[in-house]
Amino acid sequence: MVSAPMAKTDAPKTAITPTREQDYAEWYQQVVRAADLAESSPVRGCMVIKPWGYAIWENIQRELDAMFKATGHKNAYFPLFIPKSFLEKEAEHVEGFAKECAVVTHHRLIAGPNGGLIPDPDAKLEEPLIVRPTSETIIGAAFASWVQSYRDLPLLINQWANVVRWELRTRLFLRTTEFLWQEGHTAHATEAEARAETAQMLGVYGRFAEDFLAMPVLRGAKTAGERFPGAVDTYAIEAMMQDRKALQAGTSHFLGQNFARASGIKFNTKEETEEFAWTTSWGVSTRLIGGLIMTHADDDGLVLPPRIAPAHAVILPVFRGDDTKPKVMEYIDSLVAELRQHRLGERRIEVEVDVRDIRGGDKQWEWVKKGVPLRLEIGPRDVESGVVMVGRRDRGAKEKVTLPRAELVSGIVAMLEDIQSTLLGRARAFRDEHTHVVDDRKAFDAFFTAKSADKPEIHGGFALSHWCGSGKCEATIKESLKVTIRCIPDAGFDGAPWASALVGAGKCVVCGEPSTRRVVFAKAY
Amino acid sequence: MVSAPMAKTDAPKTAITPTREQDYAEWYQQVVRAADLAESSPVRGCMVIKPWGYAIWENIQRELDAMFKATGHKNAYFPLFIPKSFLEKEAEHVEGFAKECAVVTHHRLIAGPNGGLIPDPDAKLEEPLIVRPTSETIIGAAFASWVQSYRDLPLLINQWANVVRWELRTRLFLRTTEFLWQEGHTAHATEAEARAETAQMLGVYGRFAEDFLAMPVLRGAKTAGERFPGAVDTYAIEAMMQDRKALQAGTSHFLGQNFARASGIKFNTKEETEEFAWTTSWGVSTRLIGGLIMTHADDDGLVLPPRIAPAHAVILPVFRGDDTKPKVMEYIDSLVAELRQHRLGERRIEVEVDVRDIRGGDKQWEWVKKGVPLRLEIGPRDVESGVVMVGRRDRGAKEKVTLPRAELVSGIVAMLEDIQSTLLGRARAFRDEHTHVVDDRKAFDAFFTAKSADKPEIHGGFALSHWCGSGKCEATIKESLKVTIRCIPDAGFDGAPWASALVGAGKCVVCGEPSTRRVVFAKAY
Repeated sequence: MVSAPMAKTDAPKTAITPTREQDYAEWYQQVVRAADLAESSPVRGCMVIKPWGYAIWENIQRELDAMFKATGHKNAYFPLFIPKSFLEKEAEHVEGFAKECAVVTHHRLIAGPNGGLIPDPDAKLEEPLIVRPTSETIIGAAFASWVQSYRDLPLLINQWANVVRWELRTRLFLRTTEFLWQEGHTAHATEAEARAETAQMLGVYGRFAEDFLAMPVLRGAKTAGERFPGAVDTYAIEAMMQDRKALQAGTSHFLGQNFARASGIKFNTKEETEEFAWTTSWGVSTRLIGGLIMTHADDDGLVLPPRIAPAHAVILPVFRGDDTKPKVMEYIDSLVAELRQHRLGERRIEVEVDVRDIRGGDKQWEWVKKGVPLRLEIGPRDVESGVVMVGRRDRGAKEKVTLPRAELVSGIVAMLEDIQSTLLGRARAFRDEHTHVVDDRKAFDAFFTAKSADKPEIHGGFALSHWCGSGKCEATIKESLKVTIRCIPDAGFDGAPWASALVGAGKCVVCGEPSTRRVVFAKAY
Repeated sequence: MVSAPMAKTDAPKTAITPTREQDYAEWYQQVVRAADLAESSPVRGCMVIKPWGYAIWENIQRELDAMFKATGHKNAYFPLFIPKSFLEKEAEHVEGFAKECAVVTHHRLIAGPNGGLIPDPDAKLEEPLIVRPTSETIIGAAFASWVQSYRDLPLLINQWANVVRWELRTRLFLRTTEFLWQEGHTAHATEAEARAETAQMLGVYGRFAEDFLAMPVLRGAKTAGERFPGAVDTYAIEAMMQDRKALQAGTSHFLGQNFARASGIKFNTKEETEEFAWTTSWGVSTRLIGGLIMTHADDDGLVLPPRIAPAHAVILPVFRGDDTKPKVMEYIDSLVAELRQHRLGERRIEVEVDVRDIRGGDKQWEWVKKGVPLRLEIGPRDVESGVVMVGRRDRGAKEKVTLPRAELVSGIVAMLEDIQSTLLGRARAFRDEHTHVVDDRKAFDAFFTAKSADKPEIHGGFALSHWCGSGKCEATIKESLKVTIRCIPDAGFDGAPWASALVGAGKCVVCGEPSTRRVVFAKAY
């Protein structure tokens, strides 16, 4: 009935070429393009986020924002520019960001000697400004003036913003020079409170990833070598993509008193002594959309978990001649109104109606590629019979069922929830299938070696291996295999067959020295 | 019962010093500070928007965003940086923005010869990047590739973003180097459609200003001298502040084919000819918050229209000793739950409960200054009698009524709507009182001359005067009086006593040449 327009060989027909098996990196680009999510811009490394992609980000924002507010945080906004001297205040921090920052040096253009405009030498800034790569230092300066007494603590602030980190190799959503994110910044009176906040927000990210993105994530601490520049401890959520590589999808940092010292965030205690505050920061970005794509998309394009999809369903009217149009549209309008009476979580059921005058097959496939959870086809005969033909994106594109209209309306929320949990279950099964205990160095090397020359990306996945705790062993593995310790997980593996393998003593897979537990090694984005 | 802590003289006690009469500009700064809306940052001209101020912006965003989506627009996101060559594409546009733009010239810092960091000479950009002052040119480049056929039109896009225009004299919210805004950008197949879009969005802004901000606005065209750089026609909403100056609160531009030509936005028509598209752009910014303050705030601080207030009400518990606390808090918790069952528009009734352990009088005044529409005081005796003591921000701070709890709950929406319409009515009356027909040049000069030396800001307000249409007469007035033509209004004055004076022929107030109608002259922000 419908067929993939791009399939021209005897190979299985797919809407996306190449397939994941054929060329994973190119498949990713083609999924982004086919779903019309984003595109490269004329500005090196910066992307244009198109409406369907931006609507996913809006849904991510809305749900996370509600979780932040429910945990007592308030939003605020701080300057885009950071004075160079601020960045210099924290030694590790500046070391980490100086190499990749956009520097504003002038505040005016004037006509140049050879035509065109040049930065006006008379408008050179006394102190260059850095376009924020992250806002610890500029927010720290504000906190220093806001916090005087223990009564002002905790201070729980979040910012939704754009940030810039100059990148040489970029990939849409996964690594771009400018990206959108949120950054939480909090200050506390005690180390224990700040550590609890760091853990709480890692938990928020974990729940969000699993409950909304249907993306299972390991939660745990990063090693010293993988910490945020200036942090005492960094924690992350780590997901497995379909090429078995890890994606760091969110981080939560315990900053100790480092930034409080650098910025002068001091407070008078109840006992009338003066102390530096304890701070945290935590963030997720538009990178989550890259993770969403690589967790669920298939060789027919994007697959969206209903809780984060811009639309839960699309209606595709089928007209047999113009005279059937009014009757079909009337049926559709009333159906949309009925569906909108139901909610998935807090959101009303959102339905797009695609009335464009293009070939039905092309239209079908566009929506398959865009990943909308449900496709509802309605023609004159369906109107007469009071039915709707339903295709689910978590099933084959040609697998459709005809449902009585009332059954669709009353059952749509359950159907969407079923899709949501099916996607999470699949992703969890995939991750667990490709997570293995590896205790021997030879096996470790083999695990991370491509299975065949024409599929250089496909390797074992996540290795659970013992590690002695030394940076040297970590560096050895990174240099030889481009494999890193993704995290020392303490949550996010409930029920996984390999979970019990994390605990217990053993010997470092690199040097053989004693180890108290296994950690997660993987190649990563 | 409560008294203004700052009043120390025999003058009428007010929570804000100076008063509007004493020093309007300083009063504005003090209202912003007392309401904890925003503050200056260490980055010249950039502000920090604090949680109470940012929550107002979030409400503005939510309501406007819904209006944009209801009129068919979709959100997207475009790069922060604009290549210099893009800015140069449209002659008037670059002329308008080159003088005030932040220029990125390097993408890395390195250690300098004298310690500290300097922009790395090896990381100098081949082409400088401009931090967007507005996005016509970069969005135009995207539209050029998105639009091929008349089937791709209209293209209706909006962006929520930060922009930068280097300003020498800044004032919180009203004029800052970085500000937050939305910018709509649309492309159409015909001039008529683009003009209709321009008018539609001006109407959306007008309705939003009046229905949510309770800020009456005149709608009309700007003169050639006041147009957006590169536009064919600019339309604006103009409000009167309490110092009788005008605030341009939103603009909608008909760009003709200027930017389509500059960016190459071409399409194939139904008739298979190739044509340039017709484009529009329109925007409002965080400046609206400045307008909100100067429309409603009084000498006791901010006054917030309920539809845009971060919280509709604050509950101030009064404890008589610790043993009454549980009973009072239980009463309050159940009251909050009941109130939240009601909605003002789409929003649930939002209540803050201020349990901080500070003096009751100070706490009261903090919330007066923050402008929350309703203050609800609840002590042990109120709990026993089942009542609540209610103060409305649109009435005197000491004017309070005791209401039975059930009456408060069932009546809160009506009470908030009454405050909303009271504020709009007052602002309209103020504007109409200070809007006058002025047909004689001498009277015109007197109208715009300060009434007394110690109140240099207080002048007549809006003058409705005849104008011949020449830029020369406009410039004469601007040079001699710093007065500009705010708009040639065609809406926003329903029912005003002076509305009929706008139509009909006369003689230019400057040169005496014939004029077909009166226009609005005013001093402006």
